[in-house]
Amino acid sequence: MNSISDKNYIQQVSIDCVIFGYQNRQLKVLVPKLAYKGDFWGLPGGFIHQDEDIDAAAKRILYDRTGITDVFLEQFQVMGKANRSSRTFLDRLVELNADNPLLLFDRELRQKDYDWYTRRFITIGYYALVDISKVIPHKTNLDESIEWYPVKQVPKMIMDYNEMVKEALKTLRLTLDQKLSAFNLLPDTFTMQEVQDLYEAIFNKRFAQNNFPKKILRLNVLERLEKKYTGAANKAPYLYRFNKEHYNQLSSEEALLADY
Amino acid sequence: MNSISDKNYIQQVSIDCVIFGYQNRQLKVLVPKLAYKGDFWGLPGGFIHQDEDIDAAAKRILYDRTGITDVFLEQFQVMGKANRSSRTFLDRLVELNADNPLLLFDRELRQKDYDWYTRRFITIGYYALVDISKVIPHKTNLDESIEWYPVKQVPKMIMDYNEMVKEALKTLRLTLDQKLSAFNLLPDTFTMQEVQDLYEAIFNKRFAQNNFPKKILRLNVLERLEKKYTGAANKAPYLYRFNKEHYNQLSSEEALLADY
Repeated sequence: MNSISDKNYIQQVSIDCVIFGYQNRQLKVLVPKLAYKGDFWGLPGGFIHQDEDIDAAAKRILYDRTGITDVFLEQFQVMGKANRSSRTFLDRLVELNADNPLLLFDRELRQKDYDWYTRRFITIGYYALVDISKVIPHKTNLDESIEWYPVKQVPKMIMDYNEMVKEALKTLRLTLDQKLSAFNLLPDTFTMQEVQDLYEAIFNKRFAQNNFPKKILRLNVLERLEKKYTGAANKAPYLYRFNKEHYNQLSSEEALLADY
Repeated sequence: MNSISDKNYIQQVSIDCVIFGYQNRQLKVLVPKLAYKGDFWGLPGGFIHQDEDIDAAAKRILYDRTGITDVFLEQFQVMGKANRSSRTFLDRLVELNADNPLLLFDRELRQKDYDWYTRRFITIGYYALVDISKVIPHKTNLDESIEWYPVKQVPKMIMDYNEMVKEALKTLRLTLDQKLSAFNLLPDTFTMQEVQDLYEAIFNKRFAQNNFPKKILRLNVLERLEKKYTGAANKAPYLYRFNKEHYNQLSSEEALLADY
């Protein structure tokens, strides 16, 4: 049995992912719970192989928990306090699980792993935006469960993970208009009301009903499709689709402007 | 003489700072040049002590080159390609400076340092916004010079530093309106025209003369002072000051909204 320290990972650096989804008018976060006594909730995370780009590592970690890869995934913040380590949480876990044979298997290995895991860790935070209907959350062999929690009801997590969720949400809000990232949380087609519901969930506030569609349509990235079939043809709302091509064009224009 | 590897730094992680200033209607970046043959330009950078917060390390690096601390300083991007290392540049430097006695001093030490420096490095990019009139750039003992370059005329730098400047500029543009960060680049008082000139320098485009003041005043963070003395009282423009208190109030409101 190998120790984590034998694997060729970059030392003292990790990646953690805040994976956002949207369901029932609620912005949600994917939260795994560790398969040990003590109710330890965390974030999907992992380490970086020496020969692996950090973006590729984040993609791998996201894939391991969601089974999808082609999604919005960006850095938001590095957490780098000098005292940032998993020591407090791991000590508590070991204490509560003293009778767990897995933890007792090899005392020497355990010590080696313990030393590796409990050093100071700098973690690179990534946030992902996924269409929740396309994701079947996967447990790793360390997870008891993995579930979607509304951001307002995320349980108390280990280490600084609650703060990370908050920072990710800040970045999502801060850059939403320029990155047009919200549409990554919706299914392929949607009504204008569904866009407004989503924005209201993200910002946790109401937008004026008469201004919102104007503001969104002005972005010029939505393609109007047929009316949604509701039975009552008169009041049926239009369906829209996010026009990725147009958005890419916009992005290239932005890239052009960014040249210096 | 000690090797860099004996110092208690976090391995394979560095910090690099893109320091922006504004002068003569140009957005500028502070660029040091190495005191070796070969025209090697870089960015102010350094490493992280094991007992030092990453934000504190960035502050220390900024202070070492500018002599100031109380300025806008934020992360913008981690550069983390698997092949990111200083090997190519260092090999070239050693080749061109074979006659430099400093590089020949201790062959064993040199090898140890070389191995340390040329491993893969993940770097955390910070950008700073400073009032250029308050900064006297400091050379370290590795610098031949350190100078302000207009962003459009930054020389070809080592490693991926040109890309980092571009990414920092992108972040500056992307978050300018929400962070109101531009005012950090101005002296304590300024005219509306000076604000517009600054915005135009940052975005490298012109804004309509009649809309711009309205847009800026609507932010509600500028305090109008007396008229600027120009000799011709009639046409003298007003001076403004960035109202930090009001901005802090706004920020707390944002923090409140960010609660979940």
